[in-house]
Amino acid sequence: MIYIGIFVLVYNKGYQEFDDVLASVSTKVKGYSFANKTIAGDFPGIWDVADYTVPPQENNAIFVTTNAILTYDQEQTKCPEAVSAKDFCNNDEDCAPMTTKAGGNGVRTGKCVNSSQSENKVCEIYSWCPLENDTLTGTPLLTSAENFTLFVKNNILFPKFGVSRSNILDSDLKRCRFNASDPTLKFCPIFVLNDIVQFTSNHFDDLNKMGASIQIQITWDCNLDFDESACLPKYNFKRLDNNRTTNVSEGYNFRYAHYYKVENVTKRTLIKAYGIQFDIVVQGRAGKFYIIPLMLNIGSGLALLTLSSIVCDIIMLHIHKLRQFYRDKKYQNVEEACQLLKNQEKNDVQDYGATT
Amino acid sequence: MIYIGIFVLVYNKGYQEFDDVLASVSTKVKGYSFANKTIAGDFPGIWDVADYTVPPQENNAIFVTTNAILTYDQEQTKCPEAVSAKDFCNNDEDCAPMTTKAGGNGVRTGKCVNSSQSENKVCEIYSWCPLENDTLTGTPLLTSAENFTLFVKNNILFPKFGVSRSNILDSDLKRCRFNASDPTLKFCPIFVLNDIVQFTSNHFDDLNKMGASIQIQITWDCNLDFDESACLPKYNFKRLDNNRTTNVSEGYNFRYAHYYKVENVTKRTLIKAYGIQFDIVVQGRAGKFYIIPLMLNIGSGLALLTLSSIVCDIIMLHIHKLRQFYRDKKYQNVEEACQLLKNQEKNDVQDYGATT
Amino acid sequence: MIYIGIFVLVYNKGYQEFDDVLASVSTKVKGYSFANKTIAGDFPGIWDVADYTVPPQENNAIFVTTNAILTYDQEQTKCPEAVSAKDFCNNDEDCAPMTTKAGGNGVRTGKCVNSSQSENKVCEIYSWCPLENDTLTGTPLLTSAENFTLFVKNNILFPKFGVSRSNILDSDLKRCRFNASDPTLKFCPIFVLNDIVQFTSNHFDDLNKMGASIQIQITWDCNLDFDESACLPKYNFKRLDNNRTTNVSEGYNFRYAHYYKVENVTKRTLIKAYGIQFDIVVQGRAGKFYIIPLMLNIGSGLALLTLSSIVCDIIMLHIHKLRQFYRDKKYQNVEEACQLLKNQEKNDVQDYGATT
Repeated sequence: MIYIGIFVLVYNKGYQEFDDVLASVSTKVKGYSFANKTIAGDFPGIWDVADYTVPPQENNAIFVTTNAILTYDQEQTKCPEAVSAKDFCNNDEDCAPMTTKAGGNGVRTGKCVNSSQSENKVCEIYSWCPLENDTLTGTPLLTSAENFTLFVKNNILFPKFGVSRSNILDSDLKRCRFNASDPTLKFCPIFVLNDIVQFTSNHFDDLNKMGASIQIQITWDCNLDFDESACLPKYNFKRLDNNRTTNVSEGYNFRYAHYYKVENVTKRTLIKAYGIQFDIVVQGRAGKFYIIPLMLNIGSGLALLTLSSIVCDIIMLHIHKLRQFYRDKKYQNVEEACQLLKNQEKNDVQDYGATT
Repeated sequence: MIYIGIFVLVYNKGYQEFDDVLASVSTKVKGYSFANKTIAGDFPGIWDVADYTVPPQENNAIFVTTNAILTYDQEQTKCPEAVSAKDFCNNDEDCAPMTTKAGGNGVRTGKCVNSSQSENKVCEIYSWCPLENDTLTGTPLLTSAENFTLFVKNNILFPKFGVSRSNILDSDLKRCRFNASDPTLKFCPIFVLNDIVQFTSNHFDDLNKMGASIQIQITWDCNLDFDESACLPKYNFKRLDNNRTTNVSEGYNFRYAHYYKVENVTKRTLIKAYGIQFDIVVQGRAGKFYIIPLMLNIGSGLALLTLSSIVCDIIMLHIHKLRQFYRDKKYQNVEEACQLLKNQEKNDVQDYGATT
Repeated sequence: MIYIGIFVLVYNKGYQEFDDVLASVSTKVKGYSFANKTIAGDFPGIWDVADYTVPPQENNAIFVTTNAILTYDQEQTKCPEAVSAKDFCNNDEDCAPMTTKAGGNGVRTGKCVNSSQSENKVCEIYSWCPLENDTLTGTPLLTSAENFTLFVKNNILFPKFGVSRSNILDSDLKRCRFNASDPTLKFCPIFVLNDIVQFTSNHFDDLNKMGASIQIQITWDCNLDFDESACLPKYNFKRLDNNRTTNVSEGYNFRYAHYYKVENVTKRTLIKAYGIQFDIVVQGRAGKFYIIPLMLNIGSGLALLTLSSIVCDIIMLHIHKLRQFYRDKKYQNVEEACQLLKNQEKNDVQDYGATT
């Protein structure tokens, strides 16, 4: 009886019908970072949102560049392989044409040429030249990335109940910044990147060089028996790329390029972008009173009641060390034994047994 | 008995084993819009699919630009802050270098300069100049966007049963257009954007200026006991960004840029794209007859049967106002009472009670 | 009893509490292909990762170009419609200005002009000219795509148990290549594209021309009662675009463009990319011993025990051809009958019945 009353009906809300959330997420990052290099060239300038979010929009995700290796003015041509690829050779026969070396940067032309970086000769390759120098040095490029803000716009719909809600609760958005511990700010949909990283128990300085992957969970658990305005989001933050087993391939990075034409020659700027990938996951359900699930739950709860007498009997008659005493007593006067657990129905059968 | 027969076995298909759908979605938008401005410059021209879908492909989604703010020939340099940012100053000391103002467009250089838009002086900033004029005026740019067509190609697989299906049912695709109310067109996988918006009970003219987010649900509920050809998709459309609580940050938009080089200077075209984000969600399951779930369901159905006698007894013996009468009768002749609900087993025990 | 012991507790691990996986996926493709045409122009050169992955990163997915139709130096202007669009005309009245033809390549200017491809006159259109010639000829462009490698980095988290794992198990990554049948290589996170295609029972040569969609499933089923190091991923591969019902719109392709400026005129390179879309799906759960689910499962298992006697009685007393014999016997000595199925409790009641 206690199980039915408390567990099924109160805790599990057995009197409600439920609906899962349909969600739409859009994001907007704001902020500017002054850096020594930009997409425009190897001189100081700023990075804005069109420069540091790649691709410009993703379904339920956003990537913010925090560091980058930029290689300007690459051109489709031939050049000596980089020394880091270790594709050394003595003569042309060591460089079979149209083959590639694992870890290399292009397709061999078949020639063995002098390297500008080493005394050893290296194979010549077809590639986008000059080659990228894939080593990170110094401080991350976008030093102000920790101050960027991420605005998450989340509209949800519970289609069964026709209820739609938004995570934008009041119109005074420009000044608020999310803070889970402040009751007036825990529904603010604007997050400072540094704060998000701290909520995951990490330090921004530890991950802005190599990048990371962070999940932002938005949970809508709504009881629509109360007013809709009590249906509010809850935010949670988890770093997902925290790799305890190995340090190989740390962080989050990928390469892309901007192409342009100079005097009829196609050139490109190659960007190896390191940064934080934010995945936004919306989950939740709404419940509302309906008579059918209430009936079903009371029914199955009552079924469980019959168990109690059976279990009690088994214990008393077969397991308990005083079982012989109970066996004798059971058919005389069983009311003292098991009275807390036995249900009335069972008792009645036994009353009857005792009286016949 | 009725519960087992009808509810579990027929309605819930308790005799079947189920498998969830694995889905692959690809989309293709077609259509051209003639507009006063294009990505090519501030003169009339056309927008085609490579111009208005950004990024060119997304996993289970597609974005179609319906309106845009275009800023041509931006360059990394210094310029006076826009008046809309309200970064006014009297002298250089009001503009601390390397700081940013919330809502501003760049990083302050430290100088206080004249503004071309106002009599007040404003701080000078490092930015991509000229700055974007972030105000929407007049009609949406892509006036023909409502006539664009969205072709959704959806292949599914039920791995447990080895059944794969496609939403492309016949080969005469070029002429058909989806229409839920026409039986010959309700399986056509080509949708006119204006129709999709109408299926969500919205008007295209209300959302093409600011953008929107629309979910296209494809549901495959298949009974593989029948022929595979009866396994057909069902389409549903929901607008997800319908924000009742506030009008802040309406619609769907984001910024991106195209970069190019003119006389060794990198420039860019900045595009603030407003448009419709279509999310395509595929759900569904297939069922097929298997002996094991049938047995399990009959078993648990029988278990529920035993409930009826217990509930009936509780009502009759303890709750009903004639309970004393029933208590007396129960052990004499109980056949009249509860005969609809009592199961035979119970009756037998009581028959025995009556005969001893 | 057997059901409880074996099915619930052992097979379903009824003594464990479970947690679903949170996953982060990042991918990196490596490889170079020498081709007759590249993004840089209509001359031989190489394609690298920045050229053939579009967009450069996707949430849980990656696209690798295997074939492409490249149209260089398109410009916003006017040109005669392609003959393939069949927009033939006799005079200007057949080409209503600002209209489009289904299957056409732009918006009609209102003029009827000579075609360079046909003796018939065609309507003139506003478009990006020259128009794309949308026919695939010869071998796929990226002939070496089958040798590209896909590195899948997958970090997971079971938040309830605080356990995080990675699919990168040892640090010697550069040389390993995944192979499901080799025990030392079945955890290697680097996949050769040709191998992935073979795991789906397809041939690379059949799909590199038109493209395909392949799902990579990573399954983490972990028993955390054992050591964490036994919590290992399992890889599965399925081709999802295998379209048995029709050959319309085969494969996977989309269009995008690179924009640039030459002498103040914006031009673009239009790319129709055919290729393989890899969707990476991470699923799985972890279990760990907890006392509460064990108790709940023993409880409900005992409830099922009571069924056996009821079902047995129904069969014996009402259905079995010797039912009259059993009815007589039941209340004398029922021990021989049903002794395998009857539980002790029932027996006790009957012992009592037999002794009174």
